[in-house]
Amino acid sequence: MVKKNAFYAQSGGVSAVINASACGLIETARQYSSSIGKVYAGRNGIIGALMENLIDTSQESDDAIRALRHTPGGAFGSCRYKLKRLEGNKDEYERLIRVFKAHDIGYFFYNGGGDSQDTAYKVSQIGDRLGYPVVCIGIPKTIDNDLAVTDNSPGFGSVAKYVAVSVREAALDVLSMALTSTKVFILEVMGRHAGWIAAASGLAAMQAGDAPHIILFPEIPFNEDQFLRKVNSSVKDYGYCVIVASEGVRNEVGQFLSAMSAQQDAFGHAQLGGLAPFLAQIVKEKLGYKYHWAVSDYLQRSARHIASQVDVEQAYQVGKAAVELAVKGENAVMPIIIRTSQDPYRWEIGSTALKNVANVEKKLPQNFITQEGFGITQAAHSYLAPLIDGEDYPPYKHGLPVYVQLKNIPVEKKLKETFILT
Amino acid sequence: MVKKNAFYAQSGGVSAVINASACGLIETARQYSSSIGKVYAGRNGIIGALMENLIDTSQESDDAIRALRHTPGGAFGSCRYKLKRLEGNKDEYERLIRVFKAHDIGYFFYNGGGDSQDTAYKVSQIGDRLGYPVVCIGIPKTIDNDLAVTDNSPGFGSVAKYVAVSVREAALDVLSMALTSTKVFILEVMGRHAGWIAAASGLAAMQAGDAPHIILFPEIPFNEDQFLRKVNSSVKDYGYCVIVASEGVRNEVGQFLSAMSAQQDAFGHAQLGGLAPFLAQIVKEKLGYKYHWAVSDYLQRSARHIASQVDVEQAYQVGKAAVELAVKGENAVMPIIIRTSQDPYRWEIGSTALKNVANVEKKLPQNFITQEGFGITQAAHSYLAPLIDGEDYPPYKHGLPVYVQLKNIPVEKKLKETFILT
Repeated sequence: MVKKNAFYAQSGGVSAVINASACGLIETARQYSSSIGKVYAGRNGIIGALMENLIDTSQESDDAIRALRHTPGGAFGSCRYKLKRLEGNKDEYERLIRVFKAHDIGYFFYNGGGDSQDTAYKVSQIGDRLGYPVVCIGIPKTIDNDLAVTDNSPGFGSVAKYVAVSVREAALDVLSMALTSTKVFILEVMGRHAGWIAAASGLAAMQAGDAPHIILFPEIPFNEDQFLRKVNSSVKDYGYCVIVASEGVRNEVGQFLSAMSAQQDAFGHAQLGGLAPFLAQIVKEKLGYKYHWAVSDYLQRSARHIASQVDVEQAYQVGKAAVELAVKGENAVMPIIIRTSQDPYRWEIGSTALKNVANVEKKLPQNFITQEGFGITQAAHSYLAPLIDGEDYPPYKHGLPVYVQLKNIPVEKKLKETFILT
Repeated sequence: MVKKNAFYAQSGGVSAVINASACGLIETARQYSSSIGKVYAGRNGIIGALMENLIDTSQESDDAIRALRHTPGGAFGSCRYKLKRLEGNKDEYERLIRVFKAHDIGYFFYNGGGDSQDTAYKVSQIGDRLGYPVVCIGIPKTIDNDLAVTDNSPGFGSVAKYVAVSVREAALDVLSMALTSTKVFILEVMGRHAGWIAAASGLAAMQAGDAPHIILFPEIPFNEDQFLRKVNSSVKDYGYCVIVASEGVRNEVGQFLSAMSAQQDAFGHAQLGGLAPFLAQIVKEKLGYKYHWAVSDYLQRSARHIASQVDVEQAYQVGKAAVELAVKGENAVMPIIIRTSQDPYRWEIGSTALKNVANVEKKLPQNFITQEGFGITQAAHSYLAPLIDGEDYPPYKHGLPVYVQLKNIPVEKKLKETFILT
C-alpha cells in the first residue's frame, strides 16, 4: 500500500464528543504511520477541502490530541454545507480532486450526521467516476440520534444525560416551591424531526409521580385540551408539573407550535417567542398556574462537563475504527455501534455501507411512546438508559473545565487558483 | 440551659446547596443533644410553623441527613411568604408562639435571603415583646448574592460556576459553526435587581476575544446602538459573539427589556417572550446575523451536578455555625462568611446581627463593571473566581445523580384550632 495523507473534517452541528472521535482517529492514524502520512483537518468541514484551508494536525502534540477527548465543540470548525449531485456540479468535485492530489490525500474521513454521510458517499464516488482513487470513511455523529443502521449515534448519549440530569434537578426545585410559587415548569429541548432527546428526559423519573410528567414529542400532534387536562391532573395529584417539550412539536395540521407563537406577534417576528413561552402562555391563560420555562439550546449539546462515559468511549471508538477500516482496505463505509447485549449492556463496533446511511433518518419507534402520548415506555427506557451511563469528567483548573485550543497551523496552499463557494 | 426543640425552615427561592446548610444544621444539632432536642422542619418554610405542619427530622437516618449535602432543591419545601409587621398583625405572631409552645420549641433557624432574614428578625422580637423566649438564628442563602455584610451568600457560587462553565462550553460550539451558521448566541441568566450572576459568566474568558463578549447588567441601562456596535465588532474581530444577559436588564427609562418584548405582543401577553428572544430579534433585524438563544432559568440554580466545592462547604458551615451560635447563647444573629485572604483564598465564619441584613440588598460594586459597561473588571474577577473553585460531584447510579428523598414524617398536631393564612 502506498502511503498517503488523510483528510478529516467535522460536519453539521457539533456535539460534546465529536472531538473524542477526532482524538480516536488522529491517535490511531499516528499508530499506522506506515500507511497514513499526515492527517490534514479541514477548516470548517468540507469547506476546508474546497477552499484548500487545511490544518496540519501533525503539528499538535500527543497531549493536545489526547485533550480533544474531553473538549466539546468542533476543534477544526464545522459547517452546514452539502455537496450537490455530481451530475451538473462537476466543478466542486474536480476541485476536491485537485486539492487531494496537491496534498497527496488518499483517505477522506467525514464526521457527521445523515447529511454529512451523504457528502461522504458522494466523495466516495469520485474514485470510480472521476478516476481519482480515495478511500472514503464516514464517522457517525449526531445529537439527534437519527442516523440509520447504527444502534445509536455518538453525541446523543451526552445530550440525553444532560437533559435527564437537568430535569431531575429542576424538578426538585419546582417541587420545593410549588405550594406558594411556580407550579408548572417547561423545558424546551432540541429535536426538530424526532423526539429522541425529549424521550431521554423520561429517564429522570424513578417512580409514578416523578418528573417529567409530560413529554411532548414531534411524533404526537399537540392537542391543547389533552395537554391542559394532563397538566391539571399532574398539579392536582403531585402538586406540580414538569413538561419537557421537543422544539419540533406540531399541531394537528402539522404547523410547528413555535411558529404559531411567532404568528401571534404583532410585528410578524418569525423567530420571536419559541415553543416554551408559547406553552407557558397557554398554561397561564387556561389554568392560571404560575410557571417558569427554560430553553437549553446549545447548552445541552456542548455540556461536556456532564457527558456520558459510554458516549465518550463510543465516540472515540468510531474514530479509531474509521482508521482501522481504511487501513484494512474498506471503502465507502461507516463504523456503527452494535448492541450485542441489553442487560448487561454490551456493544461492539461494526460497519455499514455509506449508501445505507446517507440521507436516511431513523425515527423514534412507535412503541417508545406511551399510548397516552405524554411519556416513554419500558422499551424506550431499556434502550435509552445504557447510553447515559457513567461519568467522564474533564480536568478542571480554578473551578473551570480545561478545554484544549489547538494551534491549528495551516498547511501551505499549493494551488494557484482560488475557489468560490456557491 | 433547659433543653428545647428546634425549628428549622427553608425560605425563598431554593438553591443547589440550601440542603447542605440543612445537613450542617441537623448533623450539628444531633451533636448538641444536651441542649437541643429534636429538630422540627417547617413544611414549606414559615408556613409550616403557622399551619403547625412540622416534620420530625429525628426520624431520618444519619445517612439520609448526610445525603442532603449533595441534594439540590429544598428538602422540606420552601415558600415565598413574608411575615407582616408585628404592629397590627399580632395574630400571626401569637399563632407562632402557640405552635412553638405546643412543641416546646426554643430555637428558630431560618434559612434564606434578605426577605427571610427580615422574617427571622421579626420572630426574634417575639421574646421581648410577646414574652416568649426563642433563640433566633438566620442562615444565609441566596443565589443572587445580594445579602449584606457576608462576603458572599451560599448558593451563589454554584450558580456562578454553572453559568461560567456553560458559557465556556457553548462558546466552543458557536465558534465551531460560526462561518456558515450561528454567529450570535445569547444566554439569559437570573438576576432581576443585581448583575452578580451575569458577572460570573465573565470568569469563562481566559484571554481577549474569549466569550462572553458582551455581558448585560441590570446596573447599566441598555443602549441599543452601543449594544449593536459591540455585537458587530465582536463578529468582525472574532467571528462570533456570545452575550450573557441578566433578566433584569432595563432600558434608559427604567423599563425591563423583557417587559417591552411582551408589550409588543398583539395580545398583551405580559409574560410571553422574555429577554433573550427580544435581544435576538434586535440582532437579526439590525445586523442580520443568524442567532441562537438559551434561557437557563431553574436549571442554573438547581444544577447540583456542577456545584462549587467552596460553595457546598460554606453552605454546610453556615448551617453548622447557626447551631453553635445558638448553643453559645447568641440570639438574633446570622452566620456570615468572612474573606480573610484573597490570594490564596481563605475564609472563616463570623456573625452579624439580623437587623444588619434584614431587607438590605447588596449591590454589585461599580468598580466590578468595565467603563464600557459590557464586561467585568479585574476586581470582579478576583472577587468571583474563588467562589466557583473545586468540584463536589454527587454520587451517580445508572448515569443519574442519586438525590435523597427524605421520609418527611409529620409531627402530630397538638393544637385544636386551624390557622388561615392571609
